[in-house]
Amino acid sequence: MTDLPTHAEIHEEGPREGFQIEPGPISTADKIKLIEALAATGLEHIQACSLVNPRLVPGWADAEAVLNGFRPRPGVEYTALWFNANGLERALAFRGKLTLHGAIALTASEAFTRKNLNRSHAENVEAMRKQTSLHLSKGVPVDRIGVMAAFGCNYQGDISPTQVIRTLEDGLAIAAEAGTNITLFSLADTMGWATPARIERVLGEVRSRWPDKRLALHLHDTRGLAVANAHAGLRMGAAGNNCTEELVLLCEEMGIKTGVDLDKLIEVGRMAETIVGHQLPSELIHAGSLDAFRRLAA
Amino acid sequence: MTDLPTHAEIHEEGPREGFQIEPGPISTADKIKLIEALAATGLEHIQACSLVNPRLVPGWADAEAVLNGFRPRPGVEYTALWFNANGLERALAFRGKLTLHGAIALTASEAFTRKNLNRSHAENVEAMRKQTSLHLSKGVPVDRIGVMAAFGCNYQGDISPTQVIRTLEDGLAIAAEAGTNITLFSLADTMGWATPARIERVLGEVRSRWPDKRLALHLHDTRGLAVANAHAGLRMGAAGNNCTEELVLLCEEMGIKTGVDLDKLIEVGRMAETIVGHQLPSELIHAGSLDAFRRLAA
Repeated sequence: MTDLPTHAEIHEEGPREGFQIEPGPISTADKIKLIEALAATGLEHIQACSLVNPRLVPGWADAEAVLNGFRPRPGVEYTALWFNANGLERALAFRGKLTLHGAIALTASEAFTRKNLNRSHAENVEAMRKQTSLHLSKGVPVDRIGVMAAFGCNYQGDISPTQVIRTLEDGLAIAAEAGTNITLFSLADTMGWATPARIERVLGEVRSRWPDKRLALHLHDTRGLAVANAHAGLRMGAAGNNCTEELVLLCEEMGIKTGVDLDKLIEVGRMAETIVGHQLPSELIHAGSLDAFRRLAA
Repeated sequence: MTDLPTHAEIHEEGPREGFQIEPGPISTADKIKLIEALAATGLEHIQACSLVNPRLVPGWADAEAVLNGFRPRPGVEYTALWFNANGLERALAFRGKLTLHGAIALTASEAFTRKNLNRSHAENVEAMRKQTSLHLSKGVPVDRIGVMAAFGCNYQGDISPTQVIRTLEDGLAIAAEAGTNITLFSLADTMGWATPARIERVLGEVRSRWPDKRLALHLHDTRGLAVANAHAGLRMGAAGNNCTEELVLLCEEMGIKTGVDLDKLIEVGRMAETIVGHQLPSELIHAGSLDAFRRLAA
Protein backbone atom coordinates (compact mmCIF):
# COMPACT_ATOMS: atom_id res chain seq x y z
CA MET A 1 0.00 0.00 0.00
CA THR A 2 2.85 2.38 0.79
CA ASP A 3 4.04 1.68 -2.73
CA LEU A 4 1.32 3.95 -4.10
CA PRO A 5 2.35 7.20 -5.73
CA THR A 6 1.02 10.41 -4.15
CA HIS A 7 0.19 11.94 -7.50
CA ALA A 8 -0.85 10.51 -10.85
CA GLU A 9 -0.26 12.28 -14.15
CA ILE A 10 -3.33 11.70 -16.28
CA HIS A 11 -3.05 11.87 -20.07
CA GLU A 12 -6.43 12.50 -21.65
CA GLU A 13 -6.81 10.86 -25.06
CA GLY A 14 -10.56 11.35 -25.41
CA PRO A 15 -10.52 13.85 -28.27
CA ARG A 16 -8.03 11.85 -30.33
CA GLU A 17 -8.97 8.23 -29.66
CA GLY A 18 -12.58 8.85 -28.64
CA PHE A 19 -13.59 10.73 -31.77
CA GLN A 20 -11.60 8.33 -33.95
CA ILE A 21 -13.87 5.42 -33.05
CA GLU A 22 -17.11 7.37 -33.51
CA PRO A 23 -18.98 6.51 -36.71
CA GLY A 24 -20.78 9.83 -37.10
CA PRO A 25 -19.09 12.99 -38.35
CA ILE A 26 -18.12 15.27 -35.43
CA SER A 27 -17.91 18.95 -36.29
CA THR A 28 -14.63 20.81 -35.92
CA ALA A 29 -16.34 23.23 -33.55
CA ASP A 30 -17.46 20.38 -31.27
CA LYS A 31 -13.95 18.94 -31.18
CA ILE A 32 -12.57 22.33 -30.18
CA LYS A 33 -15.30 22.76 -27.55
CA LEU A 34 -14.43 19.41 -25.96
CA ILE A 35 -10.68 20.09 -25.92
CA GLU A 36 -11.24 23.46 -24.22
CA ALA A 37 -13.71 21.98 -21.70
CA LEU A 38 -11.29 19.18 -20.78
CA ALA A 39 -8.50 21.71 -20.16
CA ALA A 40 -10.80 23.51 -17.70
CA THR A 41 -11.17 20.40 -15.47
CA GLY A 42 -7.57 20.38 -14.25
CA LEU A 43 -6.29 17.85 -16.80
CA GLU A 44 -2.75 18.89 -17.79
CA HIS A 45 -2.02 16.54 -20.69
CA ILE A 46 -4.45 16.37 -23.59
CA GLN A 47 -3.94 14.54 -26.85
CA ALA A 48 -5.78 16.84 -29.22
CA CYS A 49 -5.83 15.00 -32.55
CA SER A 50 -4.46 12.35 -34.85
CA LEU A 51 -2.21 13.42 -37.73
CA VAL A 52 -2.84 10.40 -39.90
CA ASN A 53 -3.80 9.83 -43.51
CA PRO A 54 -7.31 11.32 -43.98
CA ARG A 55 -8.11 8.56 -46.47
CA LEU A 56 -7.57 5.99 -43.71
CA VAL A 57 -9.12 8.03 -40.88
CA PRO A 58 -11.56 10.50 -42.49
CA GLY A 59 -12.75 11.67 -39.06
CA TRP A 60 -9.42 13.44 -38.54
CA ALA A 61 -9.24 15.20 -41.93
CA ASP A 62 -9.80 18.45 -39.99
CA ALA A 63 -6.84 17.96 -37.61
CA GLU A 64 -5.19 21.24 -38.67
CA ALA A 65 -8.43 23.18 -38.28
CA VAL A 66 -8.81 21.79 -34.75
CA LEU A 67 -5.19 22.59 -33.86
CA ASN A 68 -5.59 26.12 -35.21
CA GLY A 69 -8.95 26.58 -33.54
CA PHE A 70 -8.58 25.77 -29.85
CA ARG A 71 -7.34 28.34 -27.37
CA PRO A 72 -4.51 26.77 -25.36
CA ARG A 73 -4.79 27.04 -21.60
CA PRO A 74 -1.63 27.98 -19.71
CA GLY A 75 -0.15 25.02 -17.83
CA VAL A 76 -1.75 22.43 -20.10
CA GLU A 77 0.36 20.33 -22.47
CA TYR A 78 -1.28 19.46 -25.80
CA THR A 79 0.00 16.57 -27.88
CA ALA A 80 -0.87 14.86 -31.15
CA LEU A 81 -0.40 11.37 -32.54
CA TRP A 82 1.42 10.54 -35.78
CA PHE A 83 3.05 7.47 -37.28
CA ASN A 84 5.25 8.57 -40.18
CA ALA A 85 7.33 11.36 -41.76
CA ASN A 86 4.27 13.02 -43.22
CA GLY A 87 2.53 13.13 -39.84
CA LEU A 88 5.67 14.50 -38.23
CA GLU A 89 5.83 17.32 -40.80
CA ARG A 90 2.22 18.24 -40.01
CA ALA A 91 3.01 18.20 -36.28
CA LEU A 92 6.09 20.39 -36.73
CA ALA A 93 3.86 23.11 -38.20
CA PHE A 94 2.27 23.38 -34.72
CA ARG A 95 5.49 23.36 -32.75
CA GLY A 96 4.96 25.69 -29.81
CA LYS A 97 1.23 25.00 -29.52
CA LEU A 98 1.89 21.26 -29.39
CA THR A 99 4.45 19.53 -27.18
CA LEU A 100 6.23 17.10 -29.50
CA HIS A 101 7.62 13.77 -28.35
CA GLY A 102 8.74 10.96 -30.60
CA ALA A 103 8.27 7.32 -29.65
CA ILE A 104 9.89 4.10 -30.77
CA ALA A 105 6.79 2.03 -31.50
CA LEU A 106 7.24 -1.74 -31.57
CA THR A 107 4.96 -4.73 -31.15
CA ALA A 108 5.56 -7.75 -28.94
CA SER A 109 3.70 -9.99 -31.37
CA GLU A 110 5.30 -10.86 -34.71
CA ALA A 111 1.89 -11.99 -36.02
CA PHE A 112 0.27 -8.64 -35.18
CA THR A 113 3.18 -6.69 -36.73
CA ARG A 114 2.55 -8.53 -39.99
CA LYS A 115 -1.22 -8.11 -39.79
CA ASN A 116 -1.17 -4.45 -38.77
CA LEU A 117 1.87 -3.10 -40.62
CA ASN A 118 2.53 -5.74 -43.26
CA ARG A 119 6.12 -5.94 -41.98
CA SER A 120 8.24 -8.43 -40.07
CA HIS A 121 9.44 -7.39 -36.61
CA ALA A 122 12.98 -6.96 -38.08
CA GLU A 123 11.60 -4.66 -40.81
CA ASN A 124 9.72 -2.70 -38.17
CA VAL A 125 12.90 -2.28 -36.10
CA GLU A 126 14.60 -0.95 -39.23
CA ALA A 127 11.73 1.49 -39.87
CA MET A 128 11.88 2.74 -36.27
CA ARG A 129 15.63 3.22 -36.57
CA LYS A 130 15.03 5.59 -39.52
CA GLN A 131 12.12 7.33 -37.83
CA THR A 132 14.13 7.92 -34.65
CA SER A 133 16.92 9.60 -36.64
CA LEU A 134 14.36 11.70 -38.46
CA HIS A 135 12.74 12.87 -35.21
CA LEU A 136 16.07 13.73 -33.67
CA SER A 137 17.21 15.58 -36.82
CA LYS A 138 14.12 17.79 -36.46
CA GLY A 139 14.85 18.46 -32.80
CA VAL A 140 11.96 16.30 -31.56
CA PRO A 141 13.06 14.32 -28.50
CA VAL A 142 12.60 10.55 -28.63
CA ASP A 143 12.25 9.55 -25.01
CA ARG A 144 9.79 6.71 -24.96
CA ILE A 145 9.34 3.16 -26.22
CA GLY A 146 5.84 1.89 -26.89
CA VAL A 147 5.10 -1.83 -27.04
CA MET A 148 1.82 -2.87 -28.62
CA ALA A 149 0.14 -6.22 -27.89
CA ALA A 150 2.21 -6.42 -24.70
CA PHE A 151 -0.28 -8.66 -22.90
CA GLY A 152 -1.62 -10.91 -25.64
CA CYS A 153 -2.60 -10.98 -29.28
CA ASN A 154 -5.64 -12.21 -31.18
CA TYR A 155 -3.33 -13.66 -33.87
CA GLN A 156 -0.60 -15.09 -31.66
CA GLY A 157 -2.28 -15.78 -28.31
CA ASP A 158 -0.58 -15.12 -24.97
CA ILE A 159 2.52 -12.92 -24.99
CA SER A 160 5.13 -13.85 -22.40
CA PRO A 161 6.90 -11.25 -20.24
CA THR A 162 10.11 -12.43 -21.95
CA GLN A 163 8.76 -11.31 -25.34
CA VAL A 164 7.94 -7.89 -23.87
CA ILE A 165 11.44 -7.59 -22.43
CA ARG A 166 13.04 -8.60 -25.74
CA THR A 167 10.94 -5.99 -27.55
CA LEU A 168 12.00 -3.30 -25.06
CA GLU A 169 15.63 -4.38 -25.55
CA ASP A 170 15.20 -3.92 -29.32
CA GLY A 171 13.84 -0.43 -28.66
CA LEU A 172 16.67 0.44 -26.31
CA ALA A 173 19.20 -0.71 -28.91
CA ILE A 174 17.61 1.70 -31.45
CA ALA A 175 17.78 4.51 -28.89
CA ALA A 176 21.40 3.74 -27.95
CA GLU A 177 22.46 3.73 -31.59
CA ALA A 178 20.75 7.10 -32.13
CA GLY A 179 22.19 8.49 -28.90
CA THR A 180 18.88 9.32 -27.25
CA ASN A 181 17.83 8.58 -23.69
CA ILE A 182 14.61 6.64 -23.02
CA THR A 183 12.78 7.63 -19.84
CA LEU A 184 9.38 6.00 -20.36
CA PHE A 185 8.10 2.59 -21.39
CA SER A 186 4.48 2.46 -22.50
CA LEU A 187 2.90 -1.00 -22.66
CA ALA A 188 -0.29 -1.24 -24.67
CA ASP A 189 -3.04 -3.83 -24.26
CA THR A 190 -3.96 -3.37 -27.91
CA MET A 191 -6.43 -6.26 -28.16
CA GLY A 192 -7.71 -6.49 -24.58
CA TRP A 193 -5.76 -9.45 -23.21
CA ALA A 194 -4.58 -7.87 -19.96
CA THR A 195 -5.79 -9.05 -16.58
CA PRO A 196 -4.61 -7.78 -13.18
CA ALA A 197 -2.49 -10.90 -12.64
CA ARG A 198 -0.82 -10.52 -16.04
CA ILE A 199 -0.20 -6.79 -15.48
CA GLU A 200 1.54 -7.63 -12.20
CA ARG A 201 3.68 -10.30 -13.80
CA VAL A 202 4.79 -8.23 -16.82
CA LEU A 203 5.31 -4.98 -14.88
CA GLY A 204 7.15 -6.88 -12.15
CA GLU A 205 9.64 -8.32 -14.64
CA VAL A 206 10.07 -5.03 -16.51
CA ARG A 207 10.53 -3.08 -13.30
CA SER A 208 13.10 -5.46 -11.82
CA ARG A 209 15.04 -5.34 -15.14
CA TRP A 210 14.84 -1.51 -15.48
CA PRO A 211 14.02 0.00 -12.07
CA ASP A 212 14.71 3.58 -13.25
CA LYS A 213 12.23 3.77 -16.15
CA ARG A 214 8.79 5.32 -15.82
CA LEU A 215 6.03 2.92 -16.81
CA ALA A 216 2.75 3.74 -18.50
CA LEU A 217 -0.10 1.50 -19.56
CA HIS A 218 -2.41 1.98 -22.51
CA LEU A 219 -5.49 -0.08 -21.67
CA HIS A 220 -8.60 -1.09 -23.60
CA ASP A 221 -11.85 -2.18 -21.96
CA THR A 222 -12.41 -4.98 -24.49
CA ARG A 223 -13.43 -7.49 -21.82
CA GLY A 224 -14.50 -5.15 -19.03
CA LEU A 225 -11.30 -5.46 -16.98
CA ALA A 226 -9.70 -2.06 -17.78
CA VAL A 227 -10.42 -0.49 -14.39
CA ALA A 228 -9.11 -3.56 -12.50
CA ASN A 229 -6.04 -3.49 -14.76
CA ALA A 230 -5.50 0.22 -14.07
CA HIS A 231 -5.73 -0.48 -10.35
CA ALA A 232 -3.20 -3.33 -10.59
CA GLY A 233 -0.95 -1.01 -12.61
CA LEU A 234 -1.17 1.79 -10.02
CA ARG A 235 -0.11 -0.65 -7.32
CA MET A 236 2.91 -1.53 -9.45
CA GLY A 237 3.75 2.15 -9.90
CA ALA A 238 2.49 2.41 -13.48
CA ALA A 239 -0.15 4.85 -14.59
CA GLY A 240 -2.74 3.32 -16.93
CA ASN A 241 -5.35 4.87 -19.09
CA ASN A 242 -8.97 3.93 -19.40
CA CYS A 243 -12.20 5.84 -18.96
CA THR A 244 -10.63 9.02 -17.50
CA GLU A 245 -13.34 9.79 -14.96
CA GLU A 246 -13.13 6.25 -13.53
CA LEU A 247 -9.36 6.60 -13.27
CA VAL A 248 -9.69 9.95 -11.48
CA LEU A 249 -12.23 8.47 -9.03
CA LEU A 250 -10.01 5.43 -8.43
CA CYS A 251 -6.92 7.59 -7.79
CA GLU A 252 -8.60 10.19 -5.61
CA GLU A 253 -10.28 7.56 -3.43
CA MET A 254 -6.87 5.88 -3.00
CA GLY A 255 -5.42 9.19 -1.83
CA ILE A 256 -3.55 9.74 -5.11
CA LYS A 257 -3.97 13.35 -6.24
CA THR A 258 -4.77 14.00 -9.89
CA GLY A 259 -5.45 17.74 -9.87
CA VAL A 260 -8.67 17.06 -11.78
CA ASP A 261 -12.10 18.37 -10.71
CA LEU A 262 -14.12 15.17 -11.09
CA ASP A 263 -17.50 16.91 -11.14
CA LYS A 264 -16.34 19.17 -13.96
CA LEU A 265 -14.95 16.18 -15.80
CA ILE A 266 -18.29 14.37 -15.47
CA GLU A 267 -19.99 17.42 -16.97
CA VAL A 268 -17.57 17.29 -19.88
CA GLY A 269 -18.39 13.58 -20.29
CA ARG A 270 -22.07 14.48 -20.53
CA MET A 271 -21.16 17.18 -23.08
CA ALA A 272 -19.30 14.52 -25.08
CA GLU A 273 -22.45 12.37 -25.07
CA THR A 274 -24.41 15.29 -26.51
CA ILE A 275 -21.74 15.75 -29.18
CA VAL A 276 -21.66 12.12 -30.30
CA GLY A 277 -25.42 11.73 -29.92
CA HIS A 278 -25.45 8.54 -27.86
CA GLN A 279 -24.61 7.23 -24.38
CA LEU A 280 -20.91 6.65 -23.69
CA PRO A 281 -19.76 3.48 -21.89
CA SER A 282 -19.12 5.21 -18.57
CA GLU A 283 -21.25 4.33 -15.56
CA LEU A 284 -19.78 7.22 -13.62
CA ILE A 285 -20.96 10.08 -15.83
CA HIS A 286 -24.50 8.77 -15.37
CA ALA A 287 -24.24 8.12 -11.62
CA GLY A 288 -22.34 11.27 -10.57
CA SER A 289 -19.33 11.54 -8.27
CA LEU A 290 -19.17 10.41 -4.65
CA ASP A 291 -18.20 13.93 -3.60
CA ALA A 292 -21.45 15.28 -5.04
CA PHE A 293 -23.34 12.88 -2.74
CA ARG A 294 -21.00 13.62 0.16
CA ARG A 295 -21.93 17.29 -0.14
CA LEU A 296 -25.65 16.45 -0.18
CA ALA A 297 -25.32 14.12 2.82
CA ALA A 298 -23.23 16.55 4.87
CA MET B 1 -0.40 -13.20 -4.10
CA THR B 2 -0.21 -16.50 -2.18
CA ASP B 3 -3.27 -15.30 -0.30
CA LEU B 4 -5.46 -16.09 -3.28
CA PRO B 5 -7.98 -18.89 -2.97
CA THR B 6 -7.61 -21.82 -5.41
CA HIS B 7 -11.32 -21.96 -6.08
CA ALA B 8 -14.11 -19.36 -6.12
CA GLU B 9 -17.74 -20.22 -5.51
CA ILE B 10 -19.78 -18.07 -7.88
CA HIS B 11 -23.39 -17.24 -7.04
CA GLU B 12 -25.30 -16.27 -10.15
CA GLU B 13 -28.05 -13.70 -9.48
CA GLY B 14 -28.77 -12.83 -13.11
CA PRO B 15 -32.27 -14.29 -13.32
CA ARG B 16 -33.40 -12.70 -10.07
CA GLU B 17 -31.67 -9.33 -10.03
CA GLY B 18 -31.15 -9.02 -13.79
CA PHE B 19 -34.77 -9.48 -14.77
CA GLN B 20 -35.93 -7.35 -11.84
CA ILE B 21 -34.29 -4.23 -13.31
CA GLU B 22 -35.58 -4.81 -16.85
CA PRO B 23 -38.44 -2.52 -17.83
CA GLY B 24 -39.99 -4.81 -20.43
CA PRO B 25 -42.08 -7.86 -19.52
CA ILE B 26 -40.01 -11.05 -19.74
CA SER B 27 -41.98 -14.21 -20.46
CA THR B 28 -42.01 -17.04 -17.93
CA ALA B 29 -40.67 -19.35 -20.65
CA ASP B 30 -37.66 -17.07 -21.25
CA LYS B 31 -36.88 -16.93 -17.53
CA ILE B 32 -36.95 -20.72 -17.37
CA LYS B 33 -34.80 -20.98 -20.50
CA LEU B 34 -32.15 -18.69 -18.97
CA ILE B 35 -32.07 -20.53 -15.64
CA GLU B 36 -31.60 -23.86 -17.42
CA ALA B 37 -28.91 -22.45 -19.73
CA LEU B 38 -26.97 -20.96 -16.78
CA ALA B 39 -27.03 -24.31 -14.98
CA ALA B 40 -25.44 -25.91 -18.06
CA THR B 41 -22.36 -23.63 -17.90
CA GLY B 42 -20.96 -25.11 -14.70
CA LEU B 43 -22.46 -22.52 -12.34
CA GLU B 44 -23.48 -24.32 -9.14
CA HIS B 45 -25.42 -21.60 -7.30
CA ILE B 46 -28.27 -19.84 -9.08
CA GLN B 47 -30.75 -17.43 -7.53
CA ALA B 48 -33.83 -18.24 -9.55
CA CYS B 49 -36.37 -15.61 -8.51
CA SER B 50 -37.62 -13.01 -6.09
CA LEU B 51 -40.53 -13.89 -3.79
CA VAL B 52 -41.65 -10.34 -3.18
CA ASN B 53 -44.92 -8.47 -3.33
CA PRO B 54 -46.08 -8.57 -6.99
CA ARG B 55 -47.59 -5.11 -6.56
CA LEU B 56 -44.12 -3.74 -5.77
CA VAL B 57 -42.23 -5.90 -8.29
CA PRO B 58 -44.71 -6.89 -11.02
CA GLY B 59 -41.91 -8.54 -13.04
CA TRP B 60 -41.78 -11.34 -10.49
CA ALA B 61 -45.52 -12.03 -10.26
CA ASP B 62 -44.76 -15.33 -12.05
CA ALA B 63 -42.17 -16.52 -9.50
CA GLU B 64 -44.12 -19.70 -8.69
CA ALA B 65 -44.59 -20.51 -12.38
CA VAL B 66 -40.83 -20.14 -12.91
CA LEU B 67 -40.02 -22.29 -9.87
CA ASN B 68 -42.46 -24.97 -11.04
CA GLY B 69 -41.26 -24.75 -14.61
CA PHE B 70 -37.48 -25.19 -14.63
CA ARG B 71 -35.89 -28.62 -14.62
CA PRO B 72 -33.31 -28.68 -11.82
CA ARG B 73 -29.86 -29.91 -12.79
CA PRO B 74 -28.19 -32.35 -10.37
CA GLY B 75 -25.37 -30.70 -8.43
CA VAL B 76 -26.75 -27.18 -8.83
CA GLU B 77 -28.16 -25.30 -5.84
CA TYR B 78 -31.14 -23.02 -6.61
CA THR B 79 -32.10 -20.23 -4.23
CA ALA B 80 -34.70 -17.47 -4.02
CA LEU B 81 -34.87 -14.08 -2.36
CA TRP B 82 -37.51 -13.02 0.13
CA PHE B 83 -37.85 -10.33 2.79
CA ASN B 84 -40.77 -11.21 5.04
CA ALA B 85 -43.00 -13.94 6.44
CA ASN B 86 -45.14 -14.05 3.34
CA GLY B 87 -42.10 -14.53 1.09
CA LEU B 88 -40.82 -17.24 3.43
CA GLU B 89 -44.12 -19.11 3.17
CA ARG B 90 -43.93 -19.00 -0.61
CA ALA B 91 -40.32 -20.28 -0.48
CA LEU B 92 -41.27 -23.13 1.90
CA ALA B 93 -43.67 -24.45 -0.74
CA PHE B 94 -40.61 -25.17 -2.90
CA ARG B 95 -38.51 -26.78 -0.18
CA GLY B 96 -36.52 -29.52 -1.86
CA LYS B 97 -36.28 -27.78 -5.21
CA LEU B 98 -34.91 -24.63 -3.52
CA THR B 99 -32.09 -24.54 -0.99
CA LEU B 100 -33.38 -22.27 1.78
CA HIS B 101 -31.12 -20.01 3.83
CA GLY B 102 -32.25 -17.19 6.07
CA ALA B 103 -30.22 -14.04 6.50
CA ILE B 104 -30.10 -11.34 9.14
CA ALA B 105 -30.35 -8.27 6.91
CA LEU B 106 -29.14 -4.99 8.43
CA THR B 107 -27.94 -1.67 7.06
CA ALA B 108 -24.82 0.22 8.15
CA SER B 109 -26.54 3.55 7.43
CA GLU B 110 -29.29 4.77 9.74
CA ALA B 111 -30.40 7.25 7.05
CA PHE B 112 -30.81 4.52 4.42
CA THR B 113 -32.69 2.25 6.86
CA ARG B 114 -35.22 5.06 7.35
CA LYS B 115 -35.42 5.83 3.63
CA ASN B 116 -35.64 2.23 2.46
CA LEU B 117 -37.61 0.53 5.25
CA ASN B 118 -39.20 3.48 7.06
CA ARG B 119 -37.68 2.15 10.30
CA SER B 120 -34.94 3.14 12.68
CA HIS B 121 -31.93 0.83 12.97
CA ALA B 122 -33.22 -0.29 16.40
CA GLU B 123 -36.62 -1.13 14.92
CA ASN B 124 -34.90 -3.05 12.13
CA VAL B 125 -32.86 -5.05 14.66
CA GLU B 126 -36.14 -5.90 16.41
CA ALA B 127 -37.74 -6.99 13.10
CA MET B 128 -34.71 -9.18 12.31
CA ARG B 129 -34.91 -10.76 15.76
CA LYS B 130 -38.50 -11.84 14.99
CA GLN B 131 -37.67 -12.95 11.47
CA THR B 132 -34.73 -15.05 12.68
CA SER B 133 -36.96 -16.89 15.16
CA LEU B 134 -39.54 -17.44 12.45
CA HIS B 135 -36.96 -18.90 10.05
CA LEU B 136 -35.56 -21.21 12.70
CA SER B 137 -39.03 -22.33 13.77
CA LYS B 138 -39.66 -23.44 10.18
CA GLY B 139 -36.37 -25.32 10.06
CA VAL B 140 -34.69 -22.79 7.75
CA PRO B 141 -31.07 -22.24 8.83
CA VAL B 142 -30.00 -18.64 9.50
CA ASP B 143 -26.28 -18.69 8.85
CA ARG B 144 -25.48 -15.32 7.32
CA ILE B 145 -25.55 -11.62 8.11
CA GLY B 146 -26.02 -9.15 5.30
CA VAL B 147 -25.00 -5.51 5.70
CA MET B 148 -26.37 -3.05 3.16
CA ALA B 149 -24.69 0.30 2.42
CA ALA B 150 -21.48 -1.10 3.90
CA PHE B 151 -19.22 1.22 1.88
CA GLY B 152 -21.17 4.45 1.72
CA CYS B 153 -24.66 5.88 1.42
CA ASN B 154 -26.28 8.51 -0.80
CA TYR B 155 -28.16 9.84 2.24
CA GLN B 156 -25.45 9.62 4.87
CA GLY B 157 -22.17 9.82 2.92
CA ASP B 158 -19.13 7.73 3.79
CA ILE B 159 -19.64 4.76 6.10
CA SER B 160 -16.72 3.99 8.39
CA PRO B 161 -15.40 0.46 8.97
CA THR B 162 -16.41 0.96 12.62
CA GLN B 163 -20.06 1.37 11.58
CA VAL B 164 -19.84 -1.87 9.60
CA ILE B 165 -18.34 -3.69 12.57
CA ARG B 166 -21.04 -2.36 14.90
CA THR B 167 -23.73 -3.50 12.48
CA LEU B 168 -22.19 -6.98 12.30
CA GLU B 169 -22.06 -7.05 16.12
CA ASP B 170 -25.80 -6.25 16.20
CA GLY B 171 -26.39 -9.12 13.80
CA LEU B 172 -24.26 -11.51 15.84
CA ALA B 173 -26.19 -10.57 18.98
CA ILE B 174 -29.46 -11.47 17.23
CA ALA B 175 -27.94 -14.79 16.15
CA ALA B 176 -26.57 -15.56 19.62
CA GLU B 177 -29.93 -14.85 21.23
CA ALA B 178 -31.65 -17.17 18.74
CA GLY B 179 -28.95 -19.83 19.18
CA THR B 180 -27.88 -19.97 15.54
CA ASN B 181 -24.35 -19.99 14.16
CA ILE B 182 -23.32 -17.39 11.59
CA THR B 183 -20.76 -18.61 9.06
CA LEU B 184 -20.94 -15.89 6.40
CA PHE B 185 -20.87 -12.09 6.33
CA SER B 186 -22.12 -10.48 3.14
CA LEU B 187 -21.26 -6.80 2.65
CA ALA B 188 -23.31 -4.97 0.04
CA ASP B 189 -22.26 -1.87 -1.87
CA THR B 190 -25.91 -0.92 -2.26
CA MET B 191 -25.36 2.56 -3.72
CA GLY B 192 -22.02 2.15 -5.47
CA TRP B 193 -19.62 3.79 -3.00
CA ALA B 194 -17.00 1.05 -2.87
CA THR B 195 -13.50 1.55 -4.25
CA PRO B 196 -10.65 -0.96 -4.05
CA ALA B 197 -8.97 1.00 -1.24
CA ARG B 198 -12.19 1.09 0.79
CA ILE B 199 -12.82 -2.64 0.22
CA GLU B 200 -9.34 -3.39 1.55
CA ARG B 201 -9.84 -1.20 4.62
CA VAL B 202 -13.28 -2.57 5.55
CA LEU B 203 -12.47 -6.23 4.80
CA GLY B 204 -9.16 -5.91 6.63
CA GLU B 205 -10.88 -4.71 9.80
CA VAL B 206 -13.69 -7.27 9.57
CA ARG B 207 -11.26 -10.10 8.92
CA SER B 208 -8.94 -9.21 11.78
CA ARG B 209 -11.94 -9.00 14.14
CA TRP B 210 -13.55 -12.28 12.90
CA PRO B 211 -10.87 -14.35 11.15
CA ASP B 212 -13.09 -17.47 10.95
CA LYS B 213 -16.05 -16.01 9.04
CA ARG B 214 -16.48 -16.38 5.28
CA LEU B 215 -16.82 -13.04 3.52
CA ALA B 216 -18.90 -12.22 0.47
CA LEU B 217 -19.34 -8.96 -1.39
CA HIS B 218 -22.44 -7.81 -3.23
CA LEU B 219 -21.18 -5.19 -5.68
CA HIS B 220 -22.89 -2.73 -8.00
CA ASP B 221 -21.21 -1.17 -11.04
CA THR B 222 -22.73 2.26 -10.36
CA ARG B 223 -19.46 4.08 -11.03
CA GLY B 224 -17.65 1.54 -13.18
CA LEU B 225 -15.41 0.20 -10.40
CA ALA B 226 -17.15 -3.16 -9.72
CA VAL B 227 -14.52 -5.29 -11.41
CA ALA B 228 -11.65 -3.50 -9.62
CA ASN B 229 -13.59 -3.92 -6.36
CA ALA B 230 -14.11 -7.63 -7.03
CA HIS B 231 -10.38 -7.99 -7.67
CA ALA B 232 -9.53 -6.18 -4.42
CA GLY B 233 -12.02 -8.43 -2.63
CA LEU B 234 -10.50 -11.61 -4.06
CA ARG B 235 -7.09 -10.53 -2.81
CA MET B 236 -8.63 -10.12 0.64
CA GLY B 237 -10.18 -13.58 0.46
CA ALA B 238 -13.72 -12.38 -0.21
CA ALA B 239 -15.71 -13.41 -3.24
CA GLY B 240 -17.59 -10.54 -4.86
CA ASN B 241 -20.32 -10.49 -7.42
CA ASN B 242 -20.56 -8.36 -10.49
CA CYS B 243 -20.97 -9.16 -14.15
CA THR B 244 -20.53 -12.96 -13.81
CA GLU B 245 -18.55 -13.50 -17.00
CA GLU B 246 -16.04 -10.77 -16.04
CA LEU B 247 -15.66 -12.38 -12.61
CA VAL B 248 -15.07 -15.81 -14.19
CA LEU B 249 -12.46 -14.33 -16.57
CA LEU B 250 -10.76 -12.51 -13.69
CA CYS B 251 -10.65 -15.64 -11.51
CA GLU B 252 -9.54 -18.08 -14.20
CA GLU B 253 -6.75 -15.77 -15.40
CA MET B 254 -5.58 -15.49 -11.77
CA GLY B 255 -5.46 -19.29 -11.54
CA ILE B 256 -8.59 -19.45 -9.39
CA LYS B 257 -10.86 -22.25 -10.62
CA THR B 258 -14.59 -21.51 -10.95
CA GLY B 259 -15.80 -24.68 -12.67
CA VAL B 260 -17.60 -22.48 -15.20
CA ASP B 261 -17.25 -22.85 -18.97
CA LEU B 262 -16.71 -19.21 -19.92
CA ASP B 263 -17.54 -19.66 -23.60
CA LYS B 264 -20.84 -21.30 -22.70
CA LEU B 265 -21.54 -18.49 -20.21
CA ILE B 266 -20.86 -15.88 -22.92
CA GLU B 267 -23.36 -17.68 -25.16
CA VAL B 268 -25.92 -17.49 -22.34
CA GLY B 269 -25.15 -13.76 -22.00
CA ARG B 270 -25.94 -13.32 -25.68
CA MET B 271 -29.13 -15.33 -25.19
CA ALA B 272 -30.05 -12.96 -22.34
CA GLU B 273 -29.56 -9.99 -24.71
CA THR B 274 -31.99 -11.59 -27.16
CA ILE B 275 -34.47 -12.12 -24.32
CA VAL B 276 -34.35 -8.53 -23.03
CA GLY B 277 -34.11 -7.07 -26.53
CA HIS B 278 -31.14 -4.77 -25.98
CA GLN B 279 -27.38 -4.86 -25.37
CA LEU B 280 -26.29 -5.73 -21.85
CA PRO B 281 -23.50 -3.75 -20.14
CA SER B 282 -20.86 -6.46 -20.59
CA GLU B 283 -17.89 -5.85 -22.84
CA LEU B 284 -16.89 -9.48 -22.58
CA ILE B 285 -19.98 -11.05 -24.13
CA HIS B 286 -19.38 -8.87 -27.18
CA ALA B 287 -15.60 -9.43 -27.37
CA GLY B 288 -15.50 -13.18 -26.65
CA SER B 289 -13.21 -15.07 -24.27
CA LEU B 290 -9.42 -15.13 -24.40
CA ASP B 291 -9.50 -18.93 -24.66
CA ALA B 292 -11.51 -18.68 -27.88
CA PHE B 293 -8.70 -16.55 -29.36
CA ARG B 294 -6.04 -18.82 -27.84
CA ARG B 295 -7.58 -21.76 -29.70
CA LEU B 296 -7.59 -19.80 -32.97
CA ALA B 297 -3.98 -18.66 -32.48
CA ALA B 298 -2.69 -22.12 -31.55
